[in-house]
Amino acid sequence: MIVRPRPSLFTLFFILKGSIIMRIFPQMLFVFVVSTLVVIAHRDMPLIVPGSLGAPFALFGIAISVFLGFRNNACYDRWWEARKCWGQLIYATRGFARQSVMLCELHGESGKAARRSLIDLVIVLPHVLVGYLRPGGEQMVTPVLSPDLREAIRASKMPAEVLLNQISRQLAGLRRDEMLTDIQLKMLDENVQQMGIAVANCERIRFTPLPFGYTLLLHRTAHLFCFLLPFGFSDLLGWGTPFVSTLIAYTFFGLDALGDELEEPFGLGPNDLPINALAGVIEHNLREALGEADLPPLPQRVDYVLT
Amino acid sequence: MIVRPRPSLFTLFFILKGSIIMRIFPQMLFVFVVSTLVVIAHRDMPLIVPGSLGAPFALFGIAISVFLGFRNNACYDRWWEARKCWGQLIYATRGFARQSVMLCELHGESGKAARRSLIDLVIVLPHVLVGYLRPGGEQMVTPVLSPDLREAIRASKMPAEVLLNQISRQLAGLRRDEMLTDIQLKMLDENVQQMGIAVANCERIRFTPLPFGYTLLLHRTAHLFCFLLPFGFSDLLGWGTPFVSTLIAYTFFGLDALGDELEEPFGLGPNDLPINALAGVIEHNLREALGEADLPPLPQRVDYVLT
Amino acid sequence: MIVRPRPSLFTLFFILKGSIIMRIFPQMLFVFVVSTLVVIAHRDMPLIVPGSLGAPFALFGIAISVFLGFRNNACYDRWWEARKCWGQLIYATRGFARQSVMLCELHGESGKAARRSLIDLVIVLPHVLVGYLRPGGEQMVTPVLSPDLREAIRASKMPAEVLLNQISRQLAGLRRDEMLTDIQLKMLDENVQQMGIAVANCERIRFTPLPFGYTLLLHRTAHLFCFLLPFGFSDLLGWGTPFVSTLIAYTFFGLDALGDELEEPFGLGPNDLPINALAGVIEHNLREALGEADLPPLPQRVDYVLT
Amino acid sequence: MIVRPRPSLFTLFFILKGSIIMRIFPQMLFVFVVSTLVVIAHRDMPLIVPGSLGAPFALFGIAISVFLGFRNNACYDRWWEARKCWGQLIYATRGFARQSVMLCELHGESGKAARRSLIDLVIVLPHVLVGYLRPGGEQMVTPVLSPDLREAIRASKMPAEVLLNQISRQLAGLRRDEMLTDIQLKMLDENVQQMGIAVANCERIRFTPLPFGYTLLLHRTAHLFCFLLPFGFSDLLGWGTPFVSTLIAYTFFGLDALGDELEEPFGLGPNDLPINALAGVIEHNLREALGEADLPPLPQRVDYVLT
Amino acid sequence: MIVRPRPSLFTLFFILKGSIIMRIFPQMLFVFVVSTLVVIAHRDMPLIVPGSLGAPFALFGIAISVFLGFRNNACYDRWWEARKCWGQLIYATRGFARQSVMLCELHGESGKAARRSLIDLVIVLPHVLVGYLRPGGEQMVTPVLSPDLREAIRASKMPAEVLLNQISRQLAGLRRDEMLTDIQLKMLDENVQQMGIAVANCERIRFTPLPFGYTLLLHRTAHLFCFLLPFGFSDLLGWGTPFVSTLIAYTFFGLDALGDELEEPFGLGPNDLPINALAGVIEHNLREALGEADLPPLPQRVDYVLT
Repeated sequence: MIVRPRPSLFTLFFILKGSIIMRIFPQMLFVFVVSTLVVIAHRDMPLIVPGSLGAPFALFGIAISVFLGFRNNACYDRWWEARKCWGQLIYATRGFARQSVMLCELHGESGKAARRSLIDLVIVLPHVLVGYLRPGGEQMVTPVLSPDLREAIRASKMPAEVLLNQISRQLAGLRRDEMLTDIQLKMLDENVQQMGIAVANCERIRFTPLPFGYTLLLHRTAHLFCFLLPFGFSDLLGWGTPFVSTLIAYTFFGLDALGDELEEPFGLGPNDLPINALAGVIEHNLREALGEADLPPLPQRVDYVLT
Repeated sequence: MIVRPRPSLFTLFFILKGSIIMRIFPQMLFVFVVSTLVVIAHRDMPLIVPGSLGAPFALFGIAISVFLGFRNNACYDRWWEARKCWGQLIYATRGFARQSVMLCELHGESGKAARRSLIDLVIVLPHVLVGYLRPGGEQMVTPVLSPDLREAIRASKMPAEVLLNQISRQLAGLRRDEMLTDIQLKMLDENVQQMGIAVANCERIRFTPLPFGYTLLLHRTAHLFCFLLPFGFSDLLGWGTPFVSTLIAYTFFGLDALGDELEEPFGLGPNDLPINALAGVIEHNLREALGEADLPPLPQRVDYVLT
Repeated sequence: MIVRPRPSLFTLFFILKGSIIMRIFPQMLFVFVVSTLVVIAHRDMPLIVPGSLGAPFALFGIAISVFLGFRNNACYDRWWEARKCWGQLIYATRGFARQSVMLCELHGESGKAARRSLIDLVIVLPHVLVGYLRPGGEQMVTPVLSPDLREAIRASKMPAEVLLNQISRQLAGLRRDEMLTDIQLKMLDENVQQMGIAVANCERIRFTPLPFGYTLLLHRTAHLFCFLLPFGFSDLLGWGTPFVSTLIAYTFFGLDALGDELEEPFGLGPNDLPINALAGVIEHNLREALGEADLPPLPQRVDYVLT
Repeated sequence: MIVRPRPSLFTLFFILKGSIIMRIFPQMLFVFVVSTLVVIAHRDMPLIVPGSLGAPFALFGIAISVFLGFRNNACYDRWWEARKCWGQLIYATRGFARQSVMLCELHGESGKAARRSLIDLVIVLPHVLVGYLRPGGEQMVTPVLSPDLREAIRASKMPAEVLLNQISRQLAGLRRDEMLTDIQLKMLDENVQQMGIAVANCERIRFTPLPFGYTLLLHRTAHLFCFLLPFGFSDLLGWGTPFVSTLIAYTFFGLDALGDELEEPFGLGPNDLPINALAGVIEHNLREALGEADLPPLPQRVDYVLT
Repeated sequence: MIVRPRPSLFTLFFILKGSIIMRIFPQMLFVFVVSTLVVIAHRDMPLIVPGSLGAPFALFGIAISVFLGFRNNACYDRWWEARKCWGQLIYATRGFARQSVMLCELHGESGKAARRSLIDLVIVLPHVLVGYLRPGGEQMVTPVLSPDLREAIRASKMPAEVLLNQISRQLAGLRRDEMLTDIQLKMLDENVQQMGIAVANCERIRFTPLPFGYTLLLHRTAHLFCFLLPFGFSDLLGWGTPFVSTLIAYTFFGLDALGDELEEPFGLGPNDLPINALAGVIEHNLREALGEADLPPLPQRVDYVLT
């Protein structure tokens, strides 16, 4: 994710980082070249290559704008919902740490050890989730876990679930050892359940893309529209056609490509969510709640980019 | 559901799988033929067959775009809500498995058996639900269930409810046998309630289509619009009319047909939800939570399609 | 509600049932007649009766499309929210039946009788609600209730609340008689609360229409727009004006009238919700949960219509 | 709020009550006069006063339609959310009355008195809230309350909170006197919490208007657009210009003014929410739940208007 | 946030406070100058500087309107969601104060002291949050806190979490000292959890801006569109071009700039949320709930502005 102060109006036109322009440059160039050829061809063979079909194209273009707007909205909603899921993970993990302070207050040192052991598991959870969600990501399994658990996480197809199951197992053990009452167990379990919900919702967004037919239809019509534009307006625009066509193509391809990026919010694209940094924030929070003095630093953006 | 890497720009135009083009090919052909006839007729009888009625048609087309956009949005929302219901089923079943580990921790072997018996029921639930929701689907009833229960599921009009009732009956039995306290029962019951909510919401989406009058109005106007297009623009477009009309028809019919497909998200169409695969994922998760070593494989897509 | 398989393209144009065309036929006829008169008048008195005012009308028409689209969206949301409330009623009643099996497991025959008595009340609830919500509906009060309660329901302005109060009273009685613990009572009460929420939300939708000024403004402008259309395009369209005007009027009046129908989702219109059938489904579910052998049949659609 | 049967098509054009036309009549008249002057000036001085600038105005008008549509949507959402908050208040108060029947069942006469005293407070709550939310409203404080409490409500800036605090204080007192267990207290408290949420959400809607810059921008552009309209189309429309301009102004000003009215849903405008009537409904419900025989009548609309 | 009575129509055009016009004045001036130059250049060199490219620009402008509308909607949603988070903070803090009255009722003076100590922490929470969320804000740490806690808050990167942890620690201490039962603890903890959720959601909105590529694309296209406008319509508009272009630029730049302001709802801009005032409201509420006589005054707007 790109985090930077609002640039001035002038620099605005020259920022490349985070701009979608890098991804759609080939298509824009293609539109530019086609437009130039059409202008030339139309000048030489006006009867064969038309240059003023604008009216139906305008209708077509407005229809595509409306549909593209809806798709963009849907993609943005996925992106924002994904961030909300991580927000849920953040408040559930913090809530768990906050409530578990009961163990210390009620059972002294042994409670403190039990809490420490639980929170160590919770700290690992978001890191494991990053490995699971990020395409090409690897699961980070820290040495703080027991070798068995490390192995189980590595072997599992749903590593976050292994961790949650282990947390529940430890909570049940504390209940058995009478370090937790039923109600205290239920309080802590409610936050574990929230973590499970956040994990399942992230999975949903990660592995259920927008309906492919939808994407396909809009890609195709947006591209065809842009490729046909010079036939619509070269009479009017003359040598300005390539520039105006490319500008319109920038808008349409740009929104289309941004939609693609937002559709998969857990990727590494410049507009994707910085889930790695969020996992770091959770770790920082939990270690602070444990009272550790030597906290890991909060994740910093590098060259305006937070991953 | 189609899951595939983003195709390159060039292949994008030649993908048929998942494209809506297969379903709307007849209508597109019809528009093409009508357009060609109109162009010919207009050339021969320009006074009788008009060819430049574009202005009111443009207005009509924009209005239809707006309304079609709204319908598409509503259909997409149904599809995504259906996926959310299955997400709810996933986290409720996992949560149930996670919490029920209490039984093992607190009551040893007898607790383990009780948990096993409960989770066997939960594993069957999504499979039965697939049979119930998918048009033409059959209920899968595994031999792991008792013959009585199998028969009750087969006889019932709402087989998922039979299973949920059975789960609650067993939980109440465990409460009676003092293997669960009231609060532990309530914890588990909250996830059973979530399963019941997910089931009822799936039923709602499955058996309450979009208002028929809505669908009818948009189908009719979209078709009439496309059939009338050549009368609007053949003066301008000449022999290009059939191509441009067909292109616009592709956009409008395509969105309309995609809306139809997304409206019934539990079908077997290429853009429908892979609920069979999701049931397989739940089974995998629960068996893993039970500690089984020999897990069923996760569902794989076949030819880019996950059912 | 109309439930039918997707009709073929050809029959699509000749379906009347569920089409909004029956309701807006007078207005469409009016537009047709006015258009014809305008065409004649314009031919005879082109200086007095204009025929090519299209440009500002197009702008006006697009503005109305956008606003009509928003209104339609709001009406559809009401309709869908109403269906969700009934979904909530469905899962809350089922959940209540499912949880109350505790009574049988823990207290044998006396528990069974208590459960039966509670569920008899729950079965009546949706039927009473249908009578309350459906304009012109009558409250169905079955003989299974005590005469006092029947009378109280008949006398009350909010009959569903009388039933819910009675359920809570019986639950409190069971608590007093130590057939329920506090926590078990709370579990059951949570579903009663859900029923109360569903009832209150249905009331909200039923008795709070869209702001009247909103409806009025859109009705007026949509009608004026359609009546003025022939002045805009009769120069261009000639004798085709009445047909095109009527087609556009069909779209605008149709959406407007559909909005009216969806705004009151509990009515008896062909696009309204089948709440009577849903009450039947709940009764079927609950009787099945009670273990009754002789279940009432599920509601069937008659001539594609489910009420 | 206006509640009336759908008027016939003919009367539709002559209804003033609830129509926004009364509020925007001055502006419409202004547009009419300006248009007439422009037509005259354009006829006399066509070189100085233009009359056919339609094209850029159409673009401008469509853009404003889109933005106005969004603002209207936001205002309607506020209105509907405000109604939902009152729905929440309705079901929370009813739920409280329903659950508190426990007190009667478990503790006989003393429980009945305690319940009566609690519900008397709850009955006053919505009335006090009406006084708080309605601009220029007065707080209704009934003599049923103790003088101290009456005084505290009058003195407080947040009178509803004083009542809720008093309810919680009494509940805690019942807990101390062992008339409620912890769990029963929690059940009742959950509904009190719902009331507190509804109150806070009403406050939010009442005291946080739409961003002022948003309102300002749309007011200005909509007005400028309507005042400039005659310059755009008087060539085409001639003496029809004032009529068409006024019609378009009616649509734009009407939506804008409706948005203003819906933005403050607790006012006394004809399209605002009947919160006074809703408070009466709650009082009716709670008195009925208490078993009172002599119920206050349900609020009736006067001249189609419910306040 | 600007809170003022609806201005009259005439003054509407001359309000600067809260108008976005101050921020976009340079760009509007630029458009005005460019337009004037284009008109002059077009008059002198009509073959080189075109003046009637309106058609494709109209299409482009409508597309941008649709996309800008969506972005504005997303920004407004962020702003409103931020206000909802503060609403949640309000009802959670009030709910906490209301429930904690139990301590007084059940444990007399020592309970009162414990409650006082808890609520002192809660009062500080929103003030600390303002310092955390507002760009350039400072954390207000009142002397009422213990020096250790003050130091911890100052040192922490997430100061609100430090407070919430301290609240939970004190609650657990009360549980240990048997001043709270498990269930009472759970009641209070549920509101603490709500506070934690509100805090995490505010953080989400504060630190996750809209995808930068989205903002960039719309800024660029909106600016290019406005700079190109005079080439589109100077033939038609003549010397009116600079005025009409600037008017259209006002609409587009204005919405764009408003979107920027709403995107960061915790800033100090005139359309941002008055979180400082809301923190004051919470303090007022809680002190009143404690029964303090000398309440701090409610925050007042200064020159129509509430911060």
